Amino acid sequence: MREVFQQELREVQDRLVEIAGLVATSMENATRAFNESNVSLAETVIDEDSRIDTAAAELDELAINILARQQPVARDLRIVVSALRISASLERMGDMAGHIAQLARYRYPEKVIVKGLRETFAQMGTLDVQIARKLVTLLESEDVRVAEDIRNEDDKVDALHLSVFEKVLDETWSGAAVDTVDAILASRYHERFADHAVSIAKKVQYLQSGDWIPSGS
Amino acid sequence: MREVFQQELREVQDRLVEIAGLVATSMENATRAFNESNVSLAETVIDEDSRIDTAAAELDELAINILARQQPVARDLRIVVSALRISASLERMGDMAGHIAQLARYRYPEKVIVKGLRETFAQMGTLDVQIARKLVTLLESEDVRVAEDIRNEDDKVDALHLSVFEKVLDETWSGAAVDTVDAILASRYHERFADHAVSIAKKVQYLQSGDWIPSGS
Repeated sequence: MREVFQQELREVQDRLVEIAGLVATSMENATRAFNESNVSLAETVIDEDSRIDTAAAELDELAINILARQQPVARDLRIVVSALRISASLERMGDMAGHIAQLARYRYPEKVIVKGLRETFAQMGTLDVQIARKLVTLLESEDVRVAEDIRNEDDKVDALHLSVFEKVLDETWSGAAVDTVDAILASRYHERFADHAVSIAKKVQYLQSGDWIPSGS
Repeated sequence: MREVFQQELREVQDRLVEIAGLVATSMENATRAFNESNVSLAETVIDEDSRIDTAAAELDELAINILARQQPVARDLRIVVSALRISASLERMGDMAGHIAQLARYRYPEKVIVKGLRETFAQMGTLDVQIARKLVTLLESEDVRVAEDIRNEDDKVDALHLSVFEKVLDETWSGAAVDTVDAILASRYHERFADHAVSIAKKVQYLQSGDWIPSGS
């Protein structure tokens, strides 16, 4: 029984890694679609989002099934419950990549972001992709140092997010309302994407340490 | 054993109702703080958010504890897992109320929203409060007709959200960048608040019907 359970936990972990991989690829494509106004790549990301949703729902089914059949307790139980929460966060990360791709599609053939902010968004996109790739490594290796890396990169995303607001609210900003709207939404999506990664990283850290970190933190 | 379990499920339900009540009050206060530029009320909402976070984390602990001790299966298991998810959504709804209150605080003593959009936001706020109050009723009564009401009101929030974008992007819009930023953020927070309520309503409907609704939908 125990061995079957361990095997099932590995299956859960493998699937989380797989979904995180899909999310990382989506964010990579979303970033390119966004920076290059590539509408067909944007559509790929939007389509891919429903694949991520399905994979997350299937993982949830598996986790609930394990709870029903294996009736885990203590740390094993927390692992399965955490998997459900991680799956929900990954699903939201896929949504954020989809939203970024949608902005690229709406504005096509125009670029979404005005010149003065493009470098900022290129950096944000690069950081989000790095964060997503590190999340794959974290879920594979459970190496908590990677969790620390993710938190550090999230701080950089937050700083860039703040700088977008500063730029848009500065008196030198000459963008039209549409430029302001797009910059704010895109910045928020990038920031939320990284936030969800941090919340997953905290859950993995908690599982390693045994400390309880409330879901809201 | 069975009786203890039923009692514990009632405890979970009572706590969900209680947290939903806190969220409804927060949204009511946030809406007033936002419309009236009431900074002390905004601060109340911001403080209250951490109380909601704590209540949600405590409920999660209780649910995990029930999973460990009672080892529920089938529908009982789904109820407990749903409670974890509903708690996460309520916690996010509290965050949205907090974000709306923060906008009121940042802009004080100015009003957050320019004249031409105030009526739209007053309607959005009223709808969000109604939705939150209905959520309390839904979690108390498990009456799926209330779930339908929530979906219908969410449609109205979505329509208002869209109208904010239309207004801001219209050539007659004369707001400064700060007005555009605030309108877009506030609109997004109101819309997300209602979305989370719909996702909870779907979970309650699913528990009543036995159909599986993926977490992403």
